[in-house]
Amino acid sequence: MNIRFYNARILTMENADILNGELWVQGDRILYVGDGTDTEAVYEQLQLGSILWDREIDCEGNLLMPGFKDAHTHSGMTLLRSYADDLPLQDWLTKQVFPIEAKMDGEMIYHLTKLAILEYLTSGITAIFDMYLTPETTAQACVDMGMRCVQVSGMSGQDDFARSLEKTEQCYLKYNHDDPLLSYFIGFHAEYTCSRKLLESVAELAHKYHAPVYTHLAETEAEVEGCVARYGMSPTKLFDSLGIFDYGGGGYHCVYLDEADMEIFRKRDLSVVTNPGSNTKLASGIAPISAYLRKGINVAIGTDGPASNNCLDMFREMFLVTGLAKLREHDASAVDAWEVLKMATVNGSKAMQLPDTDILAKGRLADLIMIDLHQPNMQPLNNIPKNLVYSGSKQNVKMTMIGGRILYENGRFADAYDVEAIYGKANEIIDSLR
Amino acid sequence: MNIRFYNARILTMENADILNGELWVQGDRILYVGDGTDTEAVYEQLQLGSILWDREIDCEGNLLMPGFKDAHTHSGMTLLRSYADDLPLQDWLTKQVFPIEAKMDGEMIYHLTKLAILEYLTSGITAIFDMYLTPETTAQACVDMGMRCVQVSGMSGQDDFARSLEKTEQCYLKYNHDDPLLSYFIGFHAEYTCSRKLLESVAELAHKYHAPVYTHLAETEAEVEGCVARYGMSPTKLFDSLGIFDYGGGGYHCVYLDEADMEIFRKRDLSVVTNPGSNTKLASGIAPISAYLRKGINVAIGTDGPASNNCLDMFREMFLVTGLAKLREHDASAVDAWEVLKMATVNGSKAMQLPDTDILAKGRLADLIMIDLHQPNMQPLNNIPKNLVYSGSKQNVKMTMIGGRILYENGRFADAYDVEAIYGKANEIIDSLR
Repeated sequence: MNIRFYNARILTMENADILNGELWVQGDRILYVGDGTDTEAVYEQLQLGSILWDREIDCEGNLLMPGFKDAHTHSGMTLLRSYADDLPLQDWLTKQVFPIEAKMDGEMIYHLTKLAILEYLTSGITAIFDMYLTPETTAQACVDMGMRCVQVSGMSGQDDFARSLEKTEQCYLKYNHDDPLLSYFIGFHAEYTCSRKLLESVAELAHKYHAPVYTHLAETEAEVEGCVARYGMSPTKLFDSLGIFDYGGGGYHCVYLDEADMEIFRKRDLSVVTNPGSNTKLASGIAPISAYLRKGINVAIGTDGPASNNCLDMFREMFLVTGLAKLREHDASAVDAWEVLKMATVNGSKAMQLPDTDILAKGRLADLIMIDLHQPNMQPLNNIPKNLVYSGSKQNVKMTMIGGRILYENGRFADAYDVEAIYGKANEIIDSLR
Repeated sequence: MNIRFYNARILTMENADILNGELWVQGDRILYVGDGTDTEAVYEQLQLGSILWDREIDCEGNLLMPGFKDAHTHSGMTLLRSYADDLPLQDWLTKQVFPIEAKMDGEMIYHLTKLAILEYLTSGITAIFDMYLTPETTAQACVDMGMRCVQVSGMSGQDDFARSLEKTEQCYLKYNHDDPLLSYFIGFHAEYTCSRKLLESVAELAHKYHAPVYTHLAETEAEVEGCVARYGMSPTKLFDSLGIFDYGGGGYHCVYLDEADMEIFRKRDLSVVTNPGSNTKLASGIAPISAYLRKGINVAIGTDGPASNNCLDMFREMFLVTGLAKLREHDASAVDAWEVLKMATVNGSKAMQLPDTDILAKGRLADLIMIDLHQPNMQPLNNIPKNLVYSGSKQNVKMTMIGGRILYENGRFADAYDVEAIYGKANEIIDSLR
């Protein structure tokens, strides 16, 4: 499909300037971003006689920008939204989440992931970094729906193949060459669910493929204390001492990193993926984002799974990143809107190793969204980046495009989806597992 | 207009049950809420032959519930959204807000309040508790748009008639008998902007009319410390000692109330109006909501003005009320979803003295909203109240009705509004004042 967007405001995220002009998409890539005044010259420059547009979309002054990158989630957990709330992390995991997850199979996760994808699209999320139980059916759901998905294994000491080293290696070899929407990284659940032997094997695997490694990290104080009791050091130091981070990667949550941990993050160029909604709802604490930024650490944002958040909404996360930093630092100037917007877009692309999705520019992937500025919460137009972070909402997402395909537009999903059937399946599955 | 809603889920807020049935509106009131199975019997019971419906609306299983009550706002401040951010409260007020407010006139506030009203409607807010500079034009904007508005005076020591005792009395006498959408209460800006003499006069006025009084209260630590330095006691104790709270009322913000302050709130049946978005963005702190609930204090929720929040979104506020309480108490079970939903509805009605807007029941005002459950963030339907608080969003507001009039439906505003003209005015005004 060749699609021309005209009469647009454009925030490329290369800088904070708002460009008035056009954006052209050819296939799954961006062909042109510019003021659109001399299209003949552009055609010539692109060595095109002219373009037959499949669609020409009048943006009516609305904003085009890169889609949001949800850098940590467990999509299949839509099942457990509002199922078990108001419990501390350990009770929530062991008494509610793990028992019901034990009954879930790959087909269920396929349908539940589709439900999550619908929600990502309503929030302008164009790529997800997903850790869950059945990589095949998560991959299938993403390909079937058109969602860009970086999967990461959730290895743990639980005695099943799904979370084993062998399975991880198998998926690593398969899903980095299977479909342009998919990629796969080595990851493990967390220090407290893995044996030392497994962690050493993770390091070996990372070395074998010169691959980055990702894990839940320092989510709660209890997790860090437990690791110190077991190994005499924090999880970050433990993993680094084992060589797990020798080829980069990062940590999800990172609420409790100390100076030395941060130094490891800086030295290894690891990414912090912050999950403020989940950390708030589970009372885990407030991550020291200002300190990470001062250190020059790459900070991206994830929603975490819909069981602990409970929504998959990058606007809520963006407000929480800056709001909670302001509360933590007692400083209303902490972590300004522009920093947050970078976290939700370019920093996410870096953390997820999707360099072609970071900004809007010629040759980049056409993963982009249109923000409705003709809504009262976006007016007046004093400062569009601040409007997005401080007053933006899902209701402002007018269009979500992934790889050149429009999957959500004007409140309607792509015709190819049977939305009510997806809702029906989710309710049927939870009813069957209660 | 007679409007019949059928095929609805109904959360009356009298309790947490979800009723499947119908809701009928006649004029500005609710005529019937029930299962709708025996309509002939209902007609007879209502002593109606039959009803000619102006509209019959198939709710398609979506949820009807009372509209949200925004129990503290400054609507005219839409002008300053994203205009001055990332500053502490005192600098923000004195260096940015006050200078530009000094240039605003009543006509500007009329247009800017209309912009705010559009946003309230998108968030399912059906009544506002508004403190601002020109009560006449705020009232006019609300009547012209159909918004229910409880105004409160913002008396202060600033030497203008708008914020004087005389003006407050004038408005009190006028706006409680002017239009069914309007009411008016005695209020003052805050201890730190009023002289002792003015505070004493406020108490006299309250006694003259046996009227409740409302004010910004204990928003920051510095405010409380300043009052203690000036008067040897907290603002709450000062106001109570002067007799200001003898006929009830309440405080906006209330981040820093001590045990004795809470005891005054309990004894005088005062309402706490919490403003978590604003307190977060201005780094003011986290209010002790759990303690207020333990004391049996009525807690309502306000967005505060759009300059300090920056959006007028009750869904964001609801998540923040519970989320911040969980962080403050280090307890993921603090302030559960149902408590929050009551704060946003029935408790707001109590704080704003709008008893006929609290629940959906025969004879109550038809101030109600329809929540779109056919959205991915509302699925599966494990627990609808929890879905609303933990994953709800403006995009779920399918309809907003105030006093029997549908003002927002399926993403469109009432035809009577010229929405683009309202946006244009807001931009024109800020450009003229820069």
